[in-house]
Amino acid sequence: MDALLPLAGMRIVEISSFVAAPLGGMTLAQLGAEVIRVDPVGGGPDIDRWPLAPSGRSLYWAGLNKGKRSVTVDLRSAEGRGIAARLAAECGTVLTNAPPRGGLGPDELAALRPDLVHVQLLGRRDGGTAVDYTVNAASGFPSVTGRDGAPVNHALPVWDVVCGLYLAAGLLAADRHRLRTGEGSSLRVALDDVALATAGNLGYLAEAQFGTPRERLGNHLFGEFGRDFGTADGRVMVAVVTGRQWRDLVAATGLRDVVEALERALGADFGTAGGRYRHREAIGGVLASWFGARTCAEVEDGLRGTSVLWSRYRDFGEVAAELDGRPLVGAIDQPGIGRHLAPGSPLVFGEQAPPVPAPALGEHTAGILRDVLGLAEDEIEDLRARGVAGEP
Amino acid sequence: MDALLPLAGMRIVEISSFVAAPLGGMTLAQLGAEVIRVDPVGGGPDIDRWPLAPSGRSLYWAGLNKGKRSVTVDLRSAEGRGIAARLAAECGTVLTNAPPRGGLGPDELAALRPDLVHVQLLGRRDGGTAVDYTVNAASGFPSVTGRDGAPVNHALPVWDVVCGLYLAAGLLAADRHRLRTGEGSSLRVALDDVALATAGNLGYLAEAQFGTPRERLGNHLFGEFGRDFGTADGRVMVAVVTGRQWRDLVAATGLRDVVEALERALGADFGTAGGRYRHREAIGGVLASWFGARTCAEVEDGLRGTSVLWSRYRDFGEVAAELDGRPLVGAIDQPGIGRHLAPGSPLVFGEQAPPVPAPALGEHTAGILRDVLGLAEDEIEDLRARGVAGEP
Repeated sequence: MDALLPLAGMRIVEISSFVAAPLGGMTLAQLGAEVIRVDPVGGGPDIDRWPLAPSGRSLYWAGLNKGKRSVTVDLRSAEGRGIAARLAAECGTVLTNAPPRGGLGPDELAALRPDLVHVQLLGRRDGGTAVDYTVNAASGFPSVTGRDGAPVNHALPVWDVVCGLYLAAGLLAADRHRLRTGEGSSLRVALDDVALATAGNLGYLAEAQFGTPRERLGNHLFGEFGRDFGTADGRVMVAVVTGRQWRDLVAATGLRDVVEALERALGADFGTAGGRYRHREAIGGVLASWFGARTCAEVEDGLRGTSVLWSRYRDFGEVAAELDGRPLVGAIDQPGIGRHLAPGSPLVFGEQAPPVPAPALGEHTAGILRDVLGLAEDEIEDLRARGVAGEP
Repeated sequence: MDALLPLAGMRIVEISSFVAAPLGGMTLAQLGAEVIRVDPVGGGPDIDRWPLAPSGRSLYWAGLNKGKRSVTVDLRSAEGRGIAARLAAECGTVLTNAPPRGGLGPDELAALRPDLVHVQLLGRRDGGTAVDYTVNAASGFPSVTGRDGAPVNHALPVWDVVCGLYLAAGLLAADRHRLRTGEGSSLRVALDDVALATAGNLGYLAEAQFGTPRERLGNHLFGEFGRDFGTADGRVMVAVVTGRQWRDLVAATGLRDVVEALERALGADFGTAGGRYRHREAIGGVLASWFGARTCAEVEDGLRGTSVLWSRYRDFGEVAAELDGRPLVGAIDQPGIGRHLAPGSPLVFGEQAPPVPAPALGEHTAGILRDVLGLAEDEIEDLRARGVAGEP
């Protein structure tokens, strides 16, 4: 491919807030689409969402809106919504998690643009509200996370992230259909369906239907041998997913005789994933002393050149300190926040496209009204004066 | 849209195993693409992955390969790889997490099909191996999950799931570029980049760079008020993400006087997200007795009609028991496993497309060799007899 960015020429209006829809739009923007995020004047409910920079500006908003254009209009007024609707009709593709407001529903927009692609994120399929945290509690996963006690929530808003990428893929599928047939479409995606689909796809729901719902395993892998180990200076995660990795782990730790004796004593077959899983406590006990007696650097020496999968646990301070030199990452100068290292897209066509900062809120309002809607300068000035269009 | 399935007519060869690449392919299959998963005779390393059905067959494999076609060939032999390469050239699109083997690398395949779209999942950008569990340990998230003690792994293989959807979106972006320009492309996605990009997009890396890496919060929300509460008969998650939800929560629990007195005593402003977050322990203490004195049904009564976001925690047994009637879900009769309820795609165009079972391993070998490659019956029989092509 000549261009690094395969979606060049695609235009999307995003009326969104929080994580999922903005991430979906950003994923497409980072692939070359022109994504115009339309917000109320002053910003949506996520404009001040934590974490904040020392300046008080939201690092969350900046992180999820990189590479977009920002337009602000008064979405409470029919006139402001009319501008958003005209933008949507002009661009032909809408991505939103906002409840449909007068003039901005999929049917009303399709009346303006018959081949419209409209992608709507819902909390629940039935139209009820839900957010990542509530969907997660209902999903079953917190009840099997951690070792014991009350359910443990994930720290990462998993369902929002997964849903954002479903939105991006679904939008591109609908766009492909339009490119081939000329037909628009209306796509609906519910956050609670995304969690349920994921649990089903990975087998959690089927195993429960067959009478053996997943048990709580702490940091152990399910159905294989894998767990965390303390080292002399930290902690590592070790995962076996093939027979070769198991044999390499036993060989590298010099514990073959012990492991074989244990196998005989237990009448077990550690050559199978099930055998390793069933006897994970005994196997882990044997290996724990090898890891515990070594620093992470010594573990690295001991496992180098083998197929064994392992990693040191890091905290975010360490992750941030090791960003420099990662090809994914580049320096951006974010308006209102300052210079820092940010990721580009993990979807790499040829060379890594460097990260592009998020816009300042409303930065492109006048330019988009002029270039996309063809408004004259005095019309734009009038809209601004009346508060229908925002200032940068 | 007339058809429910926007990717009708698209053909993809998937050479894959485990979660991410199979999930990416399944996402596209559920949107109407013909996805031909090519495996070694006897199956790939994921063919027996747990969880298993009572029959001993993998519920994991079945869950991640729904709606695909299955072809098996001897990928260790040049002849078998040649068949896979011809299939890839014929279909024009390849999705894989397999290390490139002789004849199946992106450049070799592009020599057969100049406009090939080739999507390669890597463990690490530098070509090193990694799996969800090791990427997760290095990501920083386990160190802020749970209340205290050692890092807590997620139970869900988050990075695999997120990466699978990045693969689907990236493949469609490359396909769009080809539809518009005739150019093929080679896309590379690394699992460790996906984790790093996600941490960056959500602000975790920026806040660490600005000197305040995320602290460990147990089940609390960051930057807002939200946490779990014990009830008289279970446990619920409550999340506030707007001022209105906070006011509704205070009103519904009848605690306005207490909350206002607390605000005055602390000199705090609970009208802001930051105020609520900083004083989350005090606020939680006040609310805990309201929840603790009620059953989940009484909590539901008390919060009905308000904007408050909440959910009961469920375990997988409960989730499975409540599947019937969810529009996402339908009954499938999975070969070798039996009848159970499984999710369709959460991407809904018009009506929900019902789930389609996974193939039996190798089920479509002869048919695909005949219909896609144009082989004669005696040629297929000869390949089978020599073990180059598998039996169903």
